[in-house]
Parts: sequence; structure tokens; C-alpha cells
Amino acid sequence: MDFRSDNVAGAAPDILQAVIDANQGTVTSYGADPYSERVETRLGAIFERKVRAFPVATGTAANALALSALTPSYGAILCHEEAHIHLDECGAPEMYTGGAKLVPLPGTSGKITPDAVRSMLDQTLNGDLHRVQPAALSLTQATEAGTCYRPAEIAALAEIVGRRKMKVHMDGARFANAVAHLNLAPAEITWRAGVDVLSFGATKNGALGAEVVVFFDLALAEMFEVRRKRAGQLLSKMRFVSAQLEAYLKGERWLELARHANAMAARLAQGLQRLPRTALLHPVEANEIFVRLPQDVVAGLRAAGFNFHDWTDAPDGTIRLVLAFNTDPADVDAFVATATKLTAAAA
Amino acid sequence: MDFRSDNVAGAAPDILQAVIDANQGTVTSYGADPYSERVETRLGAIFERKVRAFPVATGTAANALALSALTPSYGAILCHEEAHIHLDECGAPEMYTGGAKLVPLPGTSGKITPDAVRSMLDQTLNGDLHRVQPAALSLTQATEAGTCYRPAEIAALAEIVGRRKMKVHMDGARFANAVAHLNLAPAEITWRAGVDVLSFGATKNGALGAEVVVFFDLALAEMFEVRRKRAGQLLSKMRFVSAQLEAYLKGERWLELARHANAMAARLAQGLQRLPRTALLHPVEANEIFVRLPQDVVAGLRAAGFNFHDWTDAPDGTIRLVLAFNTDPADVDAFVATATKLTAAAA
Amino acid sequence: MDFRSDNVAGAAPDILQAVIDANQGTVTSYGADPYSERVETRLGAIFERKVRAFPVATGTAANALALSALTPSYGAILCHEEAHIHLDECGAPEMYTGGAKLVPLPGTSGKITPDAVRSMLDQTLNGDLHRVQPAALSLTQATEAGTCYRPAEIAALAEIVGRRKMKVHMDGARFANAVAHLNLAPAEITWRAGVDVLSFGATKNGALGAEVVVFFDLALAEMFEVRRKRAGQLLSKMRFVSAQLEAYLKGERWLELARHANAMAARLAQGLQRLPRTALLHPVEANEIFVRLPQDVVAGLRAAGFNFHDWTDAPDGTIRLVLAFNTDPADVDAFVATATKLTAAAA
Amino acid sequence: MDFRSDNVAGAAPDILQAVIDANQGTVTSYGADPYSERVETRLGAIFERKVRAFPVATGTAANALALSALTPSYGAILCHEEAHIHLDECGAPEMYTGGAKLVPLPGTSGKITPDAVRSMLDQTLNGDLHRVQPAALSLTQATEAGTCYRPAEIAALAEIVGRRKMKVHMDGARFANAVAHLNLAPAEITWRAGVDVLSFGATKNGALGAEVVVFFDLALAEMFEVRRKRAGQLLSKMRFVSAQLEAYLKGERWLELARHANAMAARLAQGLQRLPRTALLHPVEANEIFVRLPQDVVAGLRAAGFNFHDWTDAPDGTIRLVLAFNTDPADVDAFVATATKLTAAAA
Repeated sequence: MDFRSDNVAGAAPDILQAVIDANQGTVTSYGADPYSERVETRLGAIFERKVRAFPVATGTAANALALSALTPSYGAILCHEEAHIHLDECGAPEMYTGGAKLVPLPGTSGKITPDAVRSMLDQTLNGDLHRVQPAALSLTQATEAGTCYRPAEIAALAEIVGRRKMKVHMDGARFANAVAHLNLAPAEITWRAGVDVLSFGATKNGALGAEVVVFFDLALAEMFEVRRKRAGQLLSKMRFVSAQLEAYLKGERWLELARHANAMAARLAQGLQRLPRTALLHPVEANEIFVRLPQDVVAGLRAAGFNFHDWTDAPDGTIRLVLAFNTDPADVDAFVATATKLTAAAA
Repeated sequence: MDFRSDNVAGAAPDILQAVIDANQGTVTSYGADPYSERVETRLGAIFERKVRAFPVATGTAANALALSALTPSYGAILCHEEAHIHLDECGAPEMYTGGAKLVPLPGTSGKITPDAVRSMLDQTLNGDLHRVQPAALSLTQATEAGTCYRPAEIAALAEIVGRRKMKVHMDGARFANAVAHLNLAPAEITWRAGVDVLSFGATKNGALGAEVVVFFDLALAEMFEVRRKRAGQLLSKMRFVSAQLEAYLKGERWLELARHANAMAARLAQGLQRLPRTALLHPVEANEIFVRLPQDVVAGLRAAGFNFHDWTDAPDGTIRLVLAFNTDPADVDAFVATATKLTAAAA
Repeated sequence: MDFRSDNVAGAAPDILQAVIDANQGTVTSYGADPYSERVETRLGAIFERKVRAFPVATGTAANALALSALTPSYGAILCHEEAHIHLDECGAPEMYTGGAKLVPLPGTSGKITPDAVRSMLDQTLNGDLHRVQPAALSLTQATEAGTCYRPAEIAALAEIVGRRKMKVHMDGARFANAVAHLNLAPAEITWRAGVDVLSFGATKNGALGAEVVVFFDLALAEMFEVRRKRAGQLLSKMRFVSAQLEAYLKGERWLELARHANAMAARLAQGLQRLPRTALLHPVEANEIFVRLPQDVVAGLRAAGFNFHDWTDAPDGTIRLVLAFNTDPADVDAFVATATKLTAAAA
Repeated sequence: MDFRSDNVAGAAPDILQAVIDANQGTVTSYGADPYSERVETRLGAIFERKVRAFPVATGTAANALALSALTPSYGAILCHEEAHIHLDECGAPEMYTGGAKLVPLPGTSGKITPDAVRSMLDQTLNGDLHRVQPAALSLTQATEAGTCYRPAEIAALAEIVGRRKMKVHMDGARFANAVAHLNLAPAEITWRAGVDVLSFGATKNGALGAEVVVFFDLALAEMFEVRRKRAGQLLSKMRFVSAQLEAYLKGERWLELARHANAMAARLAQGLQRLPRTALLHPVEANEIFVRLPQDVVAGLRAAGFNFHDWTDAPDGTIRLVLAFNTDPADVDAFVATATKLTAAAA
């Protein structure tokens, strides 16, 4: 009963089977294989337009590489103050861009607001040559708070930065969860809303280790394969990554996996929000729940064998629960039942 | 009948099976898993001493990351002029080190000589503050020419650079092939000869995608996990990489796989060296053959369905043939037979 | 009547004379000259201890180079949110460090507080390997707000970060103004309080273009001359920079120049604070004044020929006035008289 | 009698006077001053076309900054194997470009040949994605061997690399000496021959410390002022650098200074080449002489008070003699006379 992260889960059986099936014969190495080609074609169909697609092994690399194609070394990347690229990638975007500056912006429930962007661009990063030059905006979808940007929200932000010739990146480590929740065509929350490049995640949602950088602005992709090689992200036996993506993107498989995780999160949220002295921090729109419980309830849950992370540095009962593509509903129900019992006992 | 590269091969069945077996339950993410721990322990046994071991996804990353732990941005890395890190990694070591300089040295059959190192250090990179500061020596084992350094050769080089407080890196993309050929304890050609850190390859020799950076100088490993994260090389579901390494390193499995590839190379070399107007460029001591054949023989081999790379930019009959852990002896024999027939016909 | 910056002023006559006097004979190039040696010796006397000193041409280079000696590429540099290194150097510290992250902290009147540092280190940058690693603290003395840290304030901050093995940098672009105001031995606000390296400015205070990086932690200086060369900051005819520093540091000359600028600031502040609807934003402890005046008074001052910068992006009457080593008291008095007249008229 | 370098000389009196004269009143800082504007205009006249010009403090910075505008981090810069940027700038181009690779090419008397460039581009750096991408060619004029490229030589090289969309940089640390020797319009050996950007030196030829990056390809200059700031090369009191350049470029002053240095070199060469057992290594076409003398003659010259550098690491009598804008002909004649006497005595 492990709700620590979607990364503690293994792989979906069909994705693993695709890896097994790919172990046939010899194949051109370094990404010039039919698996990788089919992934790009399939992504074109999913996004209803020509795209360029570059599989890589990690989400950190997907984000940092994508940003390096958008941002010169003297550039600034605007992002949410809780963005993974800013807080949890140990400076990878700085390394890949040659020292660009990440500029954190505040915003409720993980979402950047047009006012925060405008204020930063009008007042601080106004093009003055003594300051870094605004180059990119990075949005996380689903956000770090487990919420989802609507198309109009994305479009409003993209419009502001586009006027300054900045580019828009989307960190889609949980992109499938967002699409599943919003129930919209993927194009609606990406290029039609102004997104230029997407880090499309698969690992958290059932792959062994596979992410793909998807360019809608094809000009930006021009030297990307060189950047990927230089970054040590061009796998020699790339077929084993691309085969995962092919299985993941087959039909609605990626959405089915996300729908399950989202449904488990909704089920858990529903169970928790009925409890007294318990408060959800954000709307639950993907597969993450941030909730504050009485501290003794948190302790009791741990004693009962549930595993999860505290979400504040000084533990105060605020925890994060992450649901996965393969979470057992019985585990969710057990969590709710135990929390209910503990809460009642504590009253 | 594909002799282009050991990267065109798939994975060994037992290594793939280890990945399948690793898909059980939840496991702590980002490398803090029991698979990774067991890999480090196993490597300690193989090398007969305490080591620190860090799995990564690609050989380029293994090399560039290892070098970044040895070399400051103002440092120089001495390497063979045909070294993969210098010619075929698109500047990855420069990216990871923040702009260190790779200094190519000549040497027969892929091996750097003590004279070349001494001359460079005495004359050019003598510590003058206007020049980059010598920081590391990188050796490739087996070399780019398919030959193997002997322990005394490594020790002689390490001694020269050690006197200047430089560190020694070994690019072991084909380390197993070298150990198999030399039939020595791995320690003899690494730390006992003065090597500080090894990029230990598995991908070319039967893994899907798994390399491991092995530190013998433990102090150098201190912040390496931070560097790995920052480089986008810390896989969230690291168990799927470490499980490959665990299977690879089990007993003598890694050596068995390499022995097969080496034996196939020896068999092919033996068949070719009997042919007239045919010359091996280097001794065949691992799983690569560099050979010059009459140009019409090369064309005839291609027409007969054999796949391999030209080794000179202006094709002159010099080709590279790479044998893999799973090369079928019948393919080798067919190649020799066809070459023999074509050579006779051309006479 | 130009109060825009201390950079709009020229050079003090004796400093210029030293440049003229240095134009004699041939001298070893690239910093191995007697002028540079005497500067280091003189700084040792000023700071009452052995120091290493490295002249450079700009303050940006002094700061970025000094930080590069303290901070690995995966490191974090804590600084005030208004620090010049964070806002006004276009990412130079990121360039020189190979992509370290500057972490802005809030604080009244340009000063970082112990609580802000502690909170950042305990909660966010707590050593987690997914986050950048805290490496340095940078303090500005005098601060960006024209105030001065007291020795105990510096010591308190240095003690917190020292416990985590972080190093302390001081941006002393206006170091002379701070020493002049505090009337303390320079050692008291540097190494005795825990500062490891100081960017000691001369340009703003009467030099043509000369700054010097002063190391109190001598081990950190070890490869600094190599870094300076690599950064393009080792002037071939360094004597012309070092001669400036020698004249600047002769006796109390640097303090005399700063005392004049400070006295002019005090005189101006005194005149302004008596005016109605006029408010100083910060205590005036160096040579900068930040003041809010009625907007029509600001306009009137400009119309009367006074030159200065607005200090808010949307002009609201807040302006910055900078006094220099050579500001004419008559200009100060004229400013006050005009402001007084305009304020009265506006009443 | 110091022939070590043109950097051991001081400044020309008129250039120093311009610095003195510039010390008047207040001037906008950070390069937005009338001195800098006039320098750009004057360079436009000298080169007979619109240029963009950016003064900096050192030649290393001029070169590294210029190259950073031409070369992405994954790019390669072709240069002569003895180029200052490759051997004597401690990795500055690597730092400024974010890790681009300098690719040394052989060539007699400091000159790159079309064959060497073609061979490198056809065979090694052929655009393969595993290799760095050819981005720029850097030529030194006058060369490191004291020779000068003719317009047709430059044009031939520029044509080869231009076909691959590479850019051409010229390191003109001794540009004046080349123009003086060739007696051609500056345009003939720069933009008309295919040069895109020039590092135009003044320091070695009579300035205190002033170089200027001149862009002929104006599009490349677009963000250069931001790069200059970020590199710590935007001096706050830039007028004191630009005033030097203004005096240097006034009329034919820069050429007069170079003509003197060149004439001194010719005079010295003429005197030496008549001696037995003495050989000039290269044609003397600028202000540097590379000459091999009997070793006891070299020792005798030193004993007689002449100062110069050995030019080989194991001293074998090969020395470099550099003549300056202010070298006294009597010193030259004394050198020749002493060498003649010593040679005769040794016979």
C-alpha cells in the first residue's frame, strides 16, 4: 500500500511485452529504427498535425533538453515557483542551457497567472541588457499541485509571452492524466493553445523508462538530435525505449492508464474529504492528492502500513498521496477506512 | 548477417528476463532500490575491493559524467585521437565538464604511448597558466582499434600522469571483451594499474540499455549522485536498469557473452587473414575487426546480403566488422566463404 | 548635476596620474608585474593578514569569478533578492560557475536575515539530491539599498552557512563607502566576521576601471589565476589596472574618496527629509539615496536640469540619487533648494 | 632591450593623452557614451561599410565573445594548431561558447590551407550527428608565425566553409601589423574576403588595454551587447576604453604604430639573416621574428642584457623576438651587433 509516487510502480504488462517483442533481430542503432519512426507518426495522429518526436530516458532530460532548444544561455525561463524544473531537477535546465536563469512565479494550486507573467515581463525582465532576456515560459500539465490548466488559461499565458517572441514549453510528466481529466483533444491543450514543445511522459504512467520530446514548432527541432546525442540521451538500442512508447500510445492505452490513476485519486479524495479536521489543499484533477490530516491520524496510517510522503518540511499532517496506473482500489478503500477509523478514535 | 555494430543486436534472454522479473511490486524510486544496491556489492566482489557504482542509461553519459568528476572546467583530458569521447560523442564531455578540453594523442592500434603523454605534458600542457591544466587521462579498453592494453601498459601511463596529480578514467564500453581476451582479474587492468574510475559497459554486450560508472577512488564519487541527477541520468524507475546489470554481472555471465563475441571475431579474422590481397589493420583482441579487402570483394559481400560499415571516408575497401554476444557462427562462416569465393573470382 | 550613478563620474586625478606614471619602460605582462605585487602586499596590510589579490577590469567579472571559486556547477548561491549578481549581471555568475543557481532571499533595506537563510536551508535546500546543493552566501556591502551590514550581522549569517560548509562572498562594489560609514577596521566586516572572499571595488569610487578579488581563505585562491585567464580577465598590460589600485589604496585615499561621497549623500538626505510629502526609503549609510517625492517635484527637478533614475518601473516619484567621490556640494545644495522650492509651490 | 612581447611595452603617448582628455564631466555609463559611438562610426569609415563595434578589455575576451556569437555549444571551430585561441587562452572559447570544440589544423608558417579545411570537413566533421557540427573558422591575421594571409588565401578558405554555412572569425590581435605589411584596404582582408567578425586589437600596438569586436555580418551582432555584459566585459566607465580606440583609429595612427613595429622587425631580420648558422623559421611579415641561432650566441645575448623568449620547450637556440610600436632602432642595431660579434667569436 504504497502511495509515495507513481515512480514506485512497475510497468504495465503490455508495455513490458512490447519490450520483449522488440528483442528480435538486428536493428539500426541510435534511434534510426522503425520503432522510433512509428512513434513519431503516431504522435502526429494524436496531435492532429505534423510533429517531430525524440524519445529519451528520463523526464529531467526531456525537460532540460527541450528548454535548451528554446533558450539561449543568456535567457530566462519563467515557471511556477513549485515547478519540478526549478525545484527538483538539481539544476539540469541550467546545465543543458549553459546557464540560463529559471524565474519562479507564484500562483494558486500550481498555476501561473497572466498577471504574474505580465508583471515580471513589464517590470523586471523588460529587456534591459543588464538582465537576462526572457526566452521561454514553462507550464506543468498536470501541475505540481495535481490540477489542470484549461485551454483558455494556457492560451492566455502563451499570448502574453508570444508577443515578446518567447516560446512555450509544457512539462507533461503527467500529460496523460491531464488529458484524461479534461477529456479534450490533446491538441487543445498544446499547440492550438500556443505550446511549442511538450515533454510527454510515459514513465510515471506505466512505462519502464520512456519520455518523448514532441515539437509542434518544427523549426525548433532542427538541431535537436544533435543536442540529444551531446547530452548522452541518444540510446544506442533506442528500440527498447521507442517500443515502450509505441505500446503506450497505441489506441487509447495511455489514456486508459491515466484514467485509472485519476479515478483512484478521485475515489480516495472523496473518501477523505468527508472526514472531520481533514482538508484537501487543492482540487483533485489528476492522480495526486495533497491533504492535511490530524497528525495522529497520519501516524496511525503509517503504523497500519501505508506508505506516503510528508509534504511540509516540518511535518504538520500535510501529506501527498500519489495514485498509479495500477493502484488497487482495495488499497484505496483500505486507506479511507483506516483514516476514518483513526479520525473517529482521535475525536 | 549484420556486422555493423554490437549495438544493432538485441538483448541476451537472461538479461531481458531480469527486467521482466523486476516488474514486481513497488520499489523506492531514483536509485535507492535493492537492485542498485546489489549491483554495487557485486561490483565490489568482481573488483576485489570497495567500490561506488552508479548505473546510467548510456555510454556517452557514463563517460561524460565520469570525466566531469575528474576534470575542472579549465582542465584538459588526454585521450587517444580516435577515442570515442573525442570523436563520437558530439562534445558530451565538454558539456558535462563545463568546457574542458580534450587533447588527442596519436598511437598505434588505438593505444596511447608513454612518450606521447610525456611529450604533451612536458612541452605543451606544462602547467602554464595561459593553457588548460592537465587533469585526466582517458583510456579505452578494449580500444577503438579492437586491441587491449596490458596491465603494464596501463600502469606506465597512470604513473606518468599520477605524478602530476592527474586522474585516470577508463572507457570500458567493451570492458568485458578486454577482460575476456586478457584472461586477467578485472582489478589487474583497473585500480591495481592506476585507474580511478571506469565506465563499465553492458549495452553492447547483451543489455537493453545499462552502463555503470565504477569509482575506485571513493573520494571522487562524493557528489556523483548529484551530478547524475543534474545530468538527467538518474532514472526514476532505476530498478529496470540495475536489474539488467545484476543479471549481466551474475557469476561469469558478462564474460561468457564477451567470450562468444571475441571467439566469433577470432574465427572471422582467421578466415579472412588467409585470403590474398586482404590485410587486418590491427591485431584482433576483442570483438572488432578492421580489415582491408579488394573493393570488388567488399561490393560482392554487400550484394550477398552482408551488412557492415566502411571505415574510411573515401571507401577504399577498408571495413569494420563487429561481432556480438549472439552472433551466429554460421553467419561468420558464410562471410568467410563468400569472401573467399569472391577473392578467388577476382584473382 | 548628474546623480544617475557613481559610474557616470570620471576618475580621481591622483588615480589617473598613477596610470600616467606607470607608462614607463617595459614590464612583464599578464599580471606578473611589480604593480600587481604591491597591490597584494598593500591589501594584506589593510586587512591585517595574508591575502591573495587578483585585479580585474569589471565588478561583474570580480563577482562572477569569485563565486566560481566557491560554487560547483550543481551549487546554490544564496543572495538578497535585489542583489546585483542576481538582477543586474545578466547571468554572469551562472556563466562563470557553469550553471549554478542563484537563490534570492527577502530582507528589509537590502539586508538578508538569519531567519531567511535558515528557512531556505532547513526547508528547501536541505541537501536533497534532487535539489541544487547550497555552496555560497553572497552579501553586498554597502547593500543595494545604501545600507551597511554591521560585523555582528555578517558574523551571524556566516555562522549559519559555515556550519553547512558553505562559503561567504562579499560584493564590495561600494566596500569603501561601507568602511567609511562604519568607521571600523576592514578586517572587522570581512574575514573576522566570516567572509572568505571579497570583490573590492575601486571603479565607482574614483578609478577608471579596476576591481580586485581578495581571498582571505587562501586555499580557495589556488587555481584562481587560471580561472581569471580563462574568463578573459587577465589583462596583458595589467600594470595599468594595478597602478590604479595602488594609488587608490595608498594611505587612506580610498576612504577619503568614499567619505566625500557619503558626506554628500548625508547632506542631500538631510535636506530632503525635512520636506513634506517626501520619504526616504532606507537609512542613508553610504552614497545612495532612495527617496519618494511628489511626482510633480520629480518632474520639476528634471526640468531644472537634474539627472537621476526612476527607481520603480511605473514611475511614482521614487527615485535613486547616487553621490560620487567628486560630487560638488554646490550641486547637492542646488538640488535641495530646487526640491524645496518645488515642494512649496506644489503645496 | 626587451623583445619578449609587444605586451611588455607601455602605451603610445597620444593614446594615453586621450584617456586623460576623456576624464571630463559625467558620461552615460556601460558603453552608451559618445566615445563608443564615435568608435563604431570610425570603424565604419575604415572598413567602408556599416559595422557594429563592441569595445572590450582583453584580446581573449574579444576572441571568445566573438566566437560565442558564431558557434552553438555543439559546434566546432576550425583553427590553426598554433592559434592563440587553441593554445594560449586557457579554454576561454570553450567557456564562452558553452563547450564548443576547437579543431586544430596543420599548416606551414601559421597559415591554414584549403586542403586541411576540406579534408577535415569531408572526412571527420561531415555533419554526422555523433560529431560536433562545424560552425566557424578562425583565422589569425597576422598569424602566430608573424606571416600575413593574402586576400585570395582568405577568400579561398571562406568560400569552402561558407558553402557549409559556417562563419569566419578573424583574430586580429595584430591586425594593424597585417594591414601595414600588406598595404591594402582593411576591407580587402576582412569582409570582402568573407570574414564575418573581427577581433581588432589595439593593446599590443600602443593602447593601455582596448580591443574591439567588429561585426560585418550585422545579424550576428544582434544579442552581442547582452553577451558582452554577461561575460563581465561591459565596463561601467567604458569611455576610458573607447577613448583609447578613438585615438588609435584617428587617421592612420594605428597603421603608423604598426609600420614602426614592422620596420623594426624587418631591420632586425635583415641583420640576423646575414649571420652564419642562423635561420629564420618564417618569412618576417609583421612584428615577430622566429629565429634559430647557435645556443652559445643565445646565451651570450642574454648575458649582454637582451630579454626574449625561447620558442621551444627544450631550448635549442630557437627564440622569438617581438618588436613594438615604440622599439628603439638603437636597440635593434645593438642586438644585431652583439649577435654578429658572438657568432664570429663562436666560429
